[in-house]
Amino acid sequence: MRIPKHVGIIPDGNRRWAQDRGMTKDKGYECGIDPGLESYRICRDMGVEEITFYGFTTDNTKRPSYQKEAFTKACVDAAKILIEEGAALLVLGNTNSPMFPQELTPYTTRTKAKEGQIKANLLVNYGWHWDLMNLACSKNLNKNNIQENIQSCDVSRIDLIIRWGGRRRLSGFLPVQSVYSDFYIIENYWPDFKDTHIKEAFEWYHTQDVTLGG
Amino acid sequence: MRIPKHVGIIPDGNRRWAQDRGMTKDKGYECGIDPGLESYRICRDMGVEEITFYGFTTDNTKRPSYQKEAFTKACVDAAKILIEEGAALLVLGNTNSPMFPQELTPYTTRTKAKEGQIKANLLVNYGWHWDLMNLACSKNLNKNNIQENIQSCDVSRIDLIIRWGGRRRLSGFLPVQSVYSDFYIIENYWPDFKDTHIKEAFEWYHTQDVTLGG
Repeated sequence: MRIPKHVGIIPDGNRRWAQDRGMTKDKGYECGIDPGLESYRICRDMGVEEITFYGFTTDNTKRPSYQKEAFTKACVDAAKILIEEGAALLVLGNTNSPMFPQELTPYTTRTKAKEGQIKANLLVNYGWHWDLMNLACSKNLNKNNIQENIQSCDVSRIDLIIRWGGRRRLSGFLPVQSVYSDFYIIENYWPDFKDTHIKEAFEWYHTQDVTLGG
Repeated sequence: MRIPKHVGIIPDGNRRWAQDRGMTKDKGYECGIDPGLESYRICRDMGVEEITFYGFTTDNTKRPSYQKEAFTKACVDAAKILIEEGAALLVLGNTNSPMFPQELTPYTTRTKAKEGQIKANLLVNYGWHWDLMNLACSKNLNKNNIQENIQSCDVSRIDLIIRWGGRRRLSGFLPVQSVYSDFYIIENYWPDFKDTHIKEAFEWYHTQDVTLGG
């Protein structure tokens, strides 16, 4: 099977999942941590080299503070779990903001992978504008070095983006790394993650061609 | 019904359509012109304000020349038909290249709409890198004026992108205007366009929420 080198994960539907269970919206996020580790392990074991999780965005921080606290805590916990697992973790987002959790500052430089582990990127207080704005500072920009000059320059081109929760949109997820990505949508909410979701996405991806726009 | 203000059209599958009929790949493009006009009319009549067609890209120009000639001619013909219809046409792409058809130069400034007509953008020799590279020249770039500083600044944010031909990817289509777009995929190849395709896409779009990442 042709395995994507780099998989993007959009773990959507936490709030709808909580509401469906009669819980307040914030309660969904903590149930999204285990699926994060599980998806990392499945990807790693299938031969993926890099996985990027859409944590939270600068857009998301406009939500009520009880929700903000919940998704921020979930991201901090997820980072710790990925470090414990041994992933080469990079936390990426706008650190010049009170919304960026200080506990994650040490991981804004990529950690070293333990043996047999892969790269994991966690977008925290990420914004597509913040990412692209960096281009204004770049000298000698040309058509081949755009990715090297954005804030997310340490994140490679994404082959396959899997989104949970049924929405069919990027919601600002890494616009440059996504230009040629294949999108696969899972109807289930993220806390209802099953390992078969990743496998079905990979089986679908295997049937697609790779043209990079050519 | 909630109607998208701006619809993006990715008219893919022309070559596969031609091959399925035992024709050479180039023969598909001319059969994509009528669907272009038809989709413009349906969108206009349903209340859409702006429609953007993905003509061809700088990536596409690496294809064999008999194909290049065919898709270039189809774009020139499509532009003429849209002008005749009275659309406010803007042809957008890298004009500093022999790949840009000179006949379309007059339309690189938007034409005036005839009464009751809408904006139509046709991407011709467009490249996502070419579009973003412009940010390097921009002074005072901030998170609110990125779109005003890219090459495609006259193209507004896209609400709904409809892609024919079954692929689930952007293939470099307007990365900034697409950050919050909903994607709808039609399995049929573009020359097999039916008016029901647009209507089913709009019905689906109507069921989606609009959060702009929030």
